[in-house]
Amino acid sequence: MQFSFSPEELRTITDATGSLGETRATLRAIASLEAAGPGDLSFLGNAKYRAAVPQSRASVLLLPEDYDGEPQPDQLFLFVKNPSAALAAICARLEQQLWPKPQPGVHPTAVVEEGALVDPTATIGPLCVVAAGAQIGARAHLQAQVWIGAGAQIGEDCWLMPHSVLSARCVLKNRVRLHPGVVIGADGFGYDFVEGRHEKIPQVGTVVVEDDVEIGANTTIDRARFSETRIGAGTKIDNLVQIGHNVIVGKHCILCSQVGIAGSVTLEDYVVLAGQVGVSGHLRIGQAAKAGGQAGIIADVEPGVFISGYPAMPHRLASRLQVLQRRLPDLFKRVDQLERELAARP
Amino acid sequence: MQFSFSPEELRTITDATGSLGETRATLRAIASLEAAGPGDLSFLGNAKYRAAVPQSRASVLLLPEDYDGEPQPDQLFLFVKNPSAALAAICARLEQQLWPKPQPGVHPTAVVEEGALVDPTATIGPLCVVAAGAQIGARAHLQAQVWIGAGAQIGEDCWLMPHSVLSARCVLKNRVRLHPGVVIGADGFGYDFVEGRHEKIPQVGTVVVEDDVEIGANTTIDRARFSETRIGAGTKIDNLVQIGHNVIVGKHCILCSQVGIAGSVTLEDYVVLAGQVGVSGHLRIGQAAKAGGQAGIIADVEPGVFISGYPAMPHRLASRLQVLQRRLPDLFKRVDQLERELAARP
Amino acid sequence: MQFSFSPEELRTITDATGSLGETRATLRAIASLEAAGPGDLSFLGNAKYRAAVPQSRASVLLLPEDYDGEPQPDQLFLFVKNPSAALAAICARLEQQLWPKPQPGVHPTAVVEEGALVDPTATIGPLCVVAAGAQIGARAHLQAQVWIGAGAQIGEDCWLMPHSVLSARCVLKNRVRLHPGVVIGADGFGYDFVEGRHEKIPQVGTVVVEDDVEIGANTTIDRARFSETRIGAGTKIDNLVQIGHNVIVGKHCILCSQVGIAGSVTLEDYVVLAGQVGVSGHLRIGQAAKAGGQAGIIADVEPGVFISGYPAMPHRLASRLQVLQRRLPDLFKRVDQLERELAARP
Repeated sequence: MQFSFSPEELRTITDATGSLGETRATLRAIASLEAAGPGDLSFLGNAKYRAAVPQSRASVLLLPEDYDGEPQPDQLFLFVKNPSAALAAICARLEQQLWPKPQPGVHPTAVVEEGALVDPTATIGPLCVVAAGAQIGARAHLQAQVWIGAGAQIGEDCWLMPHSVLSARCVLKNRVRLHPGVVIGADGFGYDFVEGRHEKIPQVGTVVVEDDVEIGANTTIDRARFSETRIGAGTKIDNLVQIGHNVIVGKHCILCSQVGIAGSVTLEDYVVLAGQVGVSGHLRIGQAAKAGGQAGIIADVEPGVFISGYPAMPHRLASRLQVLQRRLPDLFKRVDQLERELAARP
Repeated sequence: MQFSFSPEELRTITDATGSLGETRATLRAIASLEAAGPGDLSFLGNAKYRAAVPQSRASVLLLPEDYDGEPQPDQLFLFVKNPSAALAAICARLEQQLWPKPQPGVHPTAVVEEGALVDPTATIGPLCVVAAGAQIGARAHLQAQVWIGAGAQIGEDCWLMPHSVLSARCVLKNRVRLHPGVVIGADGFGYDFVEGRHEKIPQVGTVVVEDDVEIGANTTIDRARFSETRIGAGTKIDNLVQIGHNVIVGKHCILCSQVGIAGSVTLEDYVVLAGQVGVSGHLRIGQAAKAGGQAGIIADVEPGVFISGYPAMPHRLASRLQVLQRRLPDLFKRVDQLERELAARP
Repeated sequence: MQFSFSPEELRTITDATGSLGETRATLRAIASLEAAGPGDLSFLGNAKYRAAVPQSRASVLLLPEDYDGEPQPDQLFLFVKNPSAALAAICARLEQQLWPKPQPGVHPTAVVEEGALVDPTATIGPLCVVAAGAQIGARAHLQAQVWIGAGAQIGEDCWLMPHSVLSARCVLKNRVRLHPGVVIGADGFGYDFVEGRHEKIPQVGTVVVEDDVEIGANTTIDRARFSETRIGAGTKIDNLVQIGHNVIVGKHCILCSQVGIAGSVTLEDYVVLAGQVGVSGHLRIGQAAKAGGQAGIIADVEPGVFISGYPAMPHRLASRLQVLQRRLPDLFKRVDQLERELAARP
């Protein structure tokens, strides 16, 4: 994003202890040392890239205090205790610019049904719908075109981005973020096969999302058959993830994009599933277990194990098998040769 | 979800033939025998769990009439002909509470364009858009923020949940359910490669969804190039499924989450595709064929076959190959040994 | 879709040089030679299907000028220079009927915040939200219920379909099409693991989508950590695709449905990824490289290579290994036999 901090502001934001040179460029973006050009800010986050600093065309450079060198013309060096932390401080400031604090209140085009309880410090943006009996907590922000079903509950400081959906009676605790298009509380996928037809099993449970969970765009989390589907505190979920009914996700898990978790699976705390991993129904994935991209998990996983492949197996074994597979053409030739040699002997 | 049936109401709903004990707990949820605590209702759905009943802390238990035992203090036994059926009756009642019958009529914030035909018994919820020439059938329910394109047709008793999209000229027959975020009728993915560029092939067909189809959240079904993409009656589709242009899905199929079906595929009736299965274009999957999770189908499939793996093959073969693969390290050693032994002989 | 061209109109649209026979059928659809029935138009696009023409029950047939045969009763032959081109001309006309040019202007139910700049030739449809500082270019079409974040920019002749989202400060150049449910500019998925918790790394970059890009339904493209995620001109993206933060997609790429690309990947121009392909983070895929369905790419790919399988390898090798795998049961038997024979010898 574009931004426009003056050198003086940057000095303050980054808590710079010194500087060298000056620039008249208007800062517009952040870039790596090599990619940066005039108008960019860059930083030396890792000492091993030190040699790239003199070549960098960035207008402003965040450097460690012990950096020894001279800026180019129209280039400003800012010396800071920790360039990565200084960059984070700038990014935090940019984030505030990108997402300024919304004004509390209900937009005149929003539809808040009778019987909904909206905290006066909450923001209900344009064209949102909040159904009867829903509760919206302090400083919650429904950005625009959000749908909140009847009896749903939203805690404090939640942020629901445009087109997100929280269906009837589902619950977000505090500081939960839903990115655009998230659907929480669609029906679980359950049918009985009766006389040649799939008869729907009512899905009357809920979804509970605990504190500090962030959920990526267009991800779907189904309501439980009865009882609840639960996402543990601090868990982070990427885009286009599917979480089936009655799944229990532990605390501080990481679910990367396009992961699919079938019904009634339990993930213990600190589980990490890389992109496109699939988990069959009714399994338990042990604490801090990790699965590599596209792994197909069809059996319980012990805590702490790193698995990959299809069907998922310990990663070390999977890697070994991949190496051996590539040697299969050779193995077939060796067996041919053995057979020939043996036949040729008396 | 929370609910609050009195013991007397439960007796009526479940058609209980007798009872033992009593509880003063307010019922809040349904749970399994082991998981249930005070305030929960539980049930003995399968005789093999009989031994778990005396340990259950549920406040109310649905038990078969021949169950022989005593409730704990503050615990109510309800004796019924079939506990699973009794539970289903309660769930059906809960479903009515969760999704009360909507009032017919058009919400004042909905936009119904001139020339759209809306049955007077239909419900058009807040902030829906119904474009010109669309037809909305009897008792159809567009819940909120739904978009219906020009000339689209919706039959009787359909339920379109928030943020679902039915694009121009596409058709839903009767009792179709679209979960939130479903997109029906986006363009098929077709281009001609002409002089270094991808030129769009117009996609002017439609999508027809037959009776009693249910489609999960954020699933996408593309319109045909010309003619139609069709989903057969009684088919159930989970979340985040992709169905390409000109696909024909038979009747009573099951497509689990994140399945992807490329263009012009035909699924015959009763096909079951587990989660994350992919099907290449222009294939035919025979009646009642089944594919295991993550299967990659790149050739036609005969009726009734169970396939899995990549590329998909009969499941029995896939399982056999998986076992043998894990024995590859040993096989390589055996061949090494054979070579050594042969070399050592005269 | 249904259409109603008279034979005379068809002659004009297709630039027919001659005709034989006549039909009184009302034309309703386009179909292949075999599938067509009365009311359908069909065409001989490929000379090898010539023998299917006499059996076709289509009411109107587009045929090459050198086709030698007689129509059936109530059947019209139209002779054209190139039947495929003639069909394309009809489809283009149908496309205009399906998507008539919208009237410029802002729908009274749309919310355009103060400080947004909307070109007077643009169309802002019902229930759209355009936040402060956004810029909407000439003839751009926001169809309905679209959300445009603060400071976002949309070029000329873009078409954003219902429920699409362009988040704050993201950019669409010219002639970009977003299908329903597309989310551009959700946060990248980045966290630091600090004292047992995942701390969010601010995502303050943008997404830039260049000219003539088309993006399928419910696809998600994340904003960069800083700097930008970029989609090159002429690239076409199917439904339910995930593109992570800081990804650079080259020009004229094809990304099929459910592809997932992790953060900081670079795709050079003309890359083709088939359905459900996954790409690990920080990789480079060379120009015109192609990946088969479900390929799992975990290493850089050279230009022009065709890869498939998991982990992705040259397709020829993958195919060879698949053949050999199916011969594993036999190989194990042969090694058993060799061991027996060797043991039986002196």
